[in-house]
Amino acid sequence: MQPPPARPGQSERDIDTPALLVDLAVMESNLDQMARKVAKAGVALRPHAKTHKSPLIARWQANRGAVGQCVQKVAEAEVLVWGGVENVLVSNEVVSPAKLARLAGLARTATISVSVDNRAAVELLSQAAVAAGSEITALVEIEVGGGRCGVAPGAEAVRLASLVDRSPNLRFGGLHAYHGRAQHLRSPSEREDAIRSASAQAAMTVDALRAAGLACPIVSGAGTGTFELEATSGVFTEIQAGSYLFMDADYSRNSEPPSFGQSLFVLSTVMSTPRPGVAVIDCGHKGIAIDSGLPLVADRPELLYVGASDEHGNLQVSGREPMLGEKVRLIPGHCDPTVDRHDWYVGVRNGRVELVWPVAARGAMT
Amino acid sequence: MQPPPARPGQSERDIDTPALLVDLAVMESNLDQMARKVAKAGVALRPHAKTHKSPLIARWQANRGAVGQCVQKVAEAEVLVWGGVENVLVSNEVVSPAKLARLAGLARTATISVSVDNRAAVELLSQAAVAAGSEITALVEIEVGGGRCGVAPGAEAVRLASLVDRSPNLRFGGLHAYHGRAQHLRSPSEREDAIRSASAQAAMTVDALRAAGLACPIVSGAGTGTFELEATSGVFTEIQAGSYLFMDADYSRNSEPPSFGQSLFVLSTVMSTPRPGVAVIDCGHKGIAIDSGLPLVADRPELLYVGASDEHGNLQVSGREPMLGEKVRLIPGHCDPTVDRHDWYVGVRNGRVELVWPVAARGAMT
Repeated sequence: MQPPPARPGQSERDIDTPALLVDLAVMESNLDQMARKVAKAGVALRPHAKTHKSPLIARWQANRGAVGQCVQKVAEAEVLVWGGVENVLVSNEVVSPAKLARLAGLARTATISVSVDNRAAVELLSQAAVAAGSEITALVEIEVGGGRCGVAPGAEAVRLASLVDRSPNLRFGGLHAYHGRAQHLRSPSEREDAIRSASAQAAMTVDALRAAGLACPIVSGAGTGTFELEATSGVFTEIQAGSYLFMDADYSRNSEPPSFGQSLFVLSTVMSTPRPGVAVIDCGHKGIAIDSGLPLVADRPELLYVGASDEHGNLQVSGREPMLGEKVRLIPGHCDPTVDRHDWYVGVRNGRVELVWPVAARGAMT
Repeated sequence: MQPPPARPGQSERDIDTPALLVDLAVMESNLDQMARKVAKAGVALRPHAKTHKSPLIARWQANRGAVGQCVQKVAEAEVLVWGGVENVLVSNEVVSPAKLARLAGLARTATISVSVDNRAAVELLSQAAVAAGSEITALVEIEVGGGRCGVAPGAEAVRLASLVDRSPNLRFGGLHAYHGRAQHLRSPSEREDAIRSASAQAAMTVDALRAAGLACPIVSGAGTGTFELEATSGVFTEIQAGSYLFMDADYSRNSEPPSFGQSLFVLSTVMSTPRPGVAVIDCGHKGIAIDSGLPLVADRPELLYVGASDEHGNLQVSGREPMLGEKVRLIPGHCDPTVDRHDWYVGVRNGRVELVWPVAARGAMT
């Protein structure tokens, strides 16, 4: 783990770079806004910790009413539980016996649920829970357009839910129905169509479960790009959005983008001004994720981030030339993997560092 | 830092995933081959540690004759020096006073050199060295086609070298002339043209320095895609290649690719087989870099990695369907940033884990 790039009390100007910056006031406003929205819709919020990877942020979310956290990895669940989080859903499939043993052990000290989409995986999960003497809630993942994991909605989901229901030390919790692709469909009507379809498939499956005598207390899903649609669908009971507290350039490219403010930045320094019209900064794709497009430079329309190598960002300058040593705030193309590149959050308010805290589950990928 | 995903003595089958795997025999063969090639060409090897980020690998390279290491970041230099490396070139510009103080302090206990491309930066570097009571070697970076940092070859480089030469506690070491773009030009003739041009510009600058009374002991540059051209140019004295010990899919796409074997993999597990023709594995772009293209699946031509999300890889299956829990070796699109995603190397030989060691400078980006 690297030493922190800043200390509380410093001016933003004096932060070492590249550094993962959080504008605390904007983040708090985002947290408040989401809490109001889900309360108004009458659904639960289970934010996705694959975005923030921090038990401290999980606490800020819990203080505003979140019912627990989502993660993608057992290692992320461990870090959250170690940090005091009491209720974690691994919204993903876990199949290896070593990982299942870790998960089943965690379930002795926290409330653990996990997605399943395979009969053999359910049997392994049950065996691990029996061996640990713990109880695990399983959500049957249905494929509702994301094109990734999940069984088919309807009869196939009911068969798997029945297997869960009669497996020792497992409890059938409901459905996991996440439409990842819908989050960045650019037009509101495309997103509405996608989530209308996902909701219909989830509703049909809930009905089929009921007909088979299986209650379905939870339908969990949604992301920051579509959560208002799921929240008002009448089907989803639990919202998994994660990015809303930070936001990123990719979400800003949605038409009618989510109403949250940009609170996450990577602070970077101009380290070379080799030719007119060109500046090179000290943050390339090792420091900021480019899987969903290049970063934007905040508040500096004359600076365009046009190329990323490992540790360099090339800026095209179309106005005032930046000075050597000058700092710029970059808006990540994609917030989640950008956070995962860094060991520390640097929380700033009114131009000063207020809090430096670890990205505790950085690199937690097993 | 995450716990290691394996322990020595385990079978490769039992490694937790995703894990950064090194085939030790192939890596050793690559190290040996490079040592022979630079020795035959009569040039020095200063491998780039931005690839491996490991003092242990630096020692294996030094044992085979490497004269020191390159890094891109002061934080990487610190980790190498802490790990016992005695000679480090920061082949990059450093301009912030806090970083220069760290570098100048390191120079009391190790031989440190750094690239410069700006008069103000030279003055700051000299001040830092004076304050620390250390001596730092500066290489003037010239822009030879990479399109990133560097002054123009010729007169501009001579002016900056003269400033270095008369700056307190600095020593003019020579030129840094790296043509990054040339490494992945696909045809051999394109690469030859690029390095012929870079070599000519470096030679012209060496002559201009000599005419100005400045000796130029070092001309440092080259990467794995072109190093044989620089090594036999008669101009370059020092080769900075890094990827050669690992290799990646992007280098394999060069026509007449480098002659090194693929020693670096990310081991991943099939965690969902939701539909015929589709398998989902537990390694997305948080675990393997996709900036230079998607990964390849080693030894399994029927499996095509067609989509990466944060923690999922989608495989298109065109033959035998993989089993749930089965493991596959992924060949990264780009080795350097893939290594930087992981805390641990898992070294394997003959199907067994031999050595687990840290990616010590993982995340060292300041």
